[in-house]
Amino acid sequence: MKLAIDAMGGDHAPKEVILGVNRAIKAFPDIEAVLFGRKDAITPFLETNDRVQIVHTDELIEATDEPVRAIKRKKQASMVLMAKAVADGEADACISAGNTGALMAAGLFIVGRIKGIERPALAPTLPTANGKGFLMLDLGANADAKPEHLLQYAIMGSIYAEKVRGIDKPRIGLLNIGTEKKKGNELTKRAYDLLEKTDIHFIGNVEARDLLECVADVVVTDGFTGNMVLKTMEGTASTIFAMLKSVFTSNLKNKVAAGLVKSDLVDLRHLMDYTEYGGAGLFGIRSPVIKAHGSSNANAIFNAIRQARDMVNHDVPNTIQKAIATLQDKTETAE
Amino acid sequence: MKLAIDAMGGDHAPKEVILGVNRAIKAFPDIEAVLFGRKDAITPFLETNDRVQIVHTDELIEATDEPVRAIKRKKQASMVLMAKAVADGEADACISAGNTGALMAAGLFIVGRIKGIERPALAPTLPTANGKGFLMLDLGANADAKPEHLLQYAIMGSIYAEKVRGIDKPRIGLLNIGTEKKKGNELTKRAYDLLEKTDIHFIGNVEARDLLECVADVVVTDGFTGNMVLKTMEGTASTIFAMLKSVFTSNLKNKVAAGLVKSDLVDLRHLMDYTEYGGAGLFGIRSPVIKAHGSSNANAIFNAIRQARDMVNHDVPNTIQKAIATLQDKTETAE
Repeated sequence: MKLAIDAMGGDHAPKEVILGVNRAIKAFPDIEAVLFGRKDAITPFLETNDRVQIVHTDELIEATDEPVRAIKRKKQASMVLMAKAVADGEADACISAGNTGALMAAGLFIVGRIKGIERPALAPTLPTANGKGFLMLDLGANADAKPEHLLQYAIMGSIYAEKVRGIDKPRIGLLNIGTEKKKGNELTKRAYDLLEKTDIHFIGNVEARDLLECVADVVVTDGFTGNMVLKTMEGTASTIFAMLKSVFTSNLKNKVAAGLVKSDLVDLRHLMDYTEYGGAGLFGIRSPVIKAHGSSNANAIFNAIRQARDMVNHDVPNTIQKAIATLQDKTETAE
Repeated sequence: MKLAIDAMGGDHAPKEVILGVNRAIKAFPDIEAVLFGRKDAITPFLETNDRVQIVHTDELIEATDEPVRAIKRKKQASMVLMAKAVADGEADACISAGNTGALMAAGLFIVGRIKGIERPALAPTLPTANGKGFLMLDLGANADAKPEHLLQYAIMGSIYAEKVRGIDKPRIGLLNIGTEKKKGNELTKRAYDLLEKTDIHFIGNVEARDLLECVADVVVTDGFTGNMVLKTMEGTASTIFAMLKSVFTSNLKNKVAAGLVKSDLVDLRHLMDYTEYGGAGLFGIRSPVIKAHGSSNANAIFNAIRQARDMVNHDVPNTIQKAIATLQDKTETAE
């Protein structure tokens, strides 16, 4: 299998991207990589290997670029060339740690949607206290969603959790402001009715306060709410850890205490680090498109590559396409 | 001023409610209290004072009762009688730590909306790392909101922050998934346009990850999103503190460390405790209605009473009514 990688995307590109690629090439003998970016910036970090190829380009999409415009105008940008390689069948999947909006636009407009999918969804695996993690989608590919979109997100999430994460009968929850069926806004009430009728293992509404306790394997929500919840989690964790740090450095007694528990606290912080689970998949696109976190280090890139490889090996896009086609047949028969 | 208090509401009622009342009666010579509930359950905790009166009733609304039905059927419930006392002009404001939905229904159907207000909003003050706190609304009075509702929330929040919290030109932020004007869903994009045209100090979009860093004094959002963000904060904080506790009790070395920092960590947990800021106001109702947290202790009840007193003293409902009337005049003139 051949993976297209945007060597210039992310805060620590190209160095950390290339170090992640080096590690993945050693770990997975079945993959080849094509790196898109500035050759002179890439080669100092790249371990020579006949399974890695560089496609040189000077152009790149900045984090501040307006996504859709950047994709349309910067025809030679590393991310655009990467997506084109997948669209043209030269690569099986692609990975970038660059501009999220631009990558979503590249997935949608260059690689293209799966037939029958109305809206793609951004789907990261988020950490839980027990270390298992859960998939959440949509995390912001589409701010406004219809009930039918949430249904498609649930089906895509269920397939991914089963195939790639190896979870038998994954528990699908609908993110809501109460667990009772009639709770919520118009969107969640109507989505609940649709989800009840499917073959997936729908466990009903789940509340935001229980997410980190692994209340479901897949959590479905609209992109606005999903993005809001993710950023609230990040903000709350970051504020608490900053406050802890200030407690632990405030006086000598506390510094002594910090020395005693430091390694365990680092483990705890590590457990809450979602780059361990790979990047966020852009689901509903014809080939796997993986968004690695903007602050990705080599380890995060390695995990994103492993994830792309798993999605190709388990043929996730085709499985999604078949499931959506079956759903549509059923709906038409029922009508 | 006379305050109506539901003595039977909350997990620790009536004991903690009455202990909070005792403290408030001593602290504020200008208040009288009417307590609604079971006389035999209240008197053991009540310090005799001629400014406190008990109205006996056996009926009460349970946490599990369906809100609107409970309000309509349980005519003698302590919460219903409390709201009626305000509606009949016998009391100036009311406080309950009971069933949130039922209290919102009691506010809406018994006390009644301010003329011109389309939807009341539930508005607690939430903690920030710097200890100042911020007001957020709506936290769940209405799951679905229109842009015009968000505009009214902003005006009510601005008045409260200025009058009760004493903030000069309070900064009003619109909760959104990005700070740029064009970001968000249909609701926030349209609300942004409305907020830009007001006299309040609108600072634009604010992101969920910055809330605990005190990015605004008042944060406006729809009830679904607000409730989701609040529960995500609670869940994330609770999971992290539980994980910390397990680190600190995992072995002898860590237990020693825990002993050294314990008091500072308790202070930190305390800083994140929003009952310190009083209860959640139900804004847009003719008289102040305060929802104290279900798990309120005497201190939380005391703070909720102080808050109700401040709202009465600063004539918040009338100020809101005038502001909304002015806004409507302007809109009509512009049309």
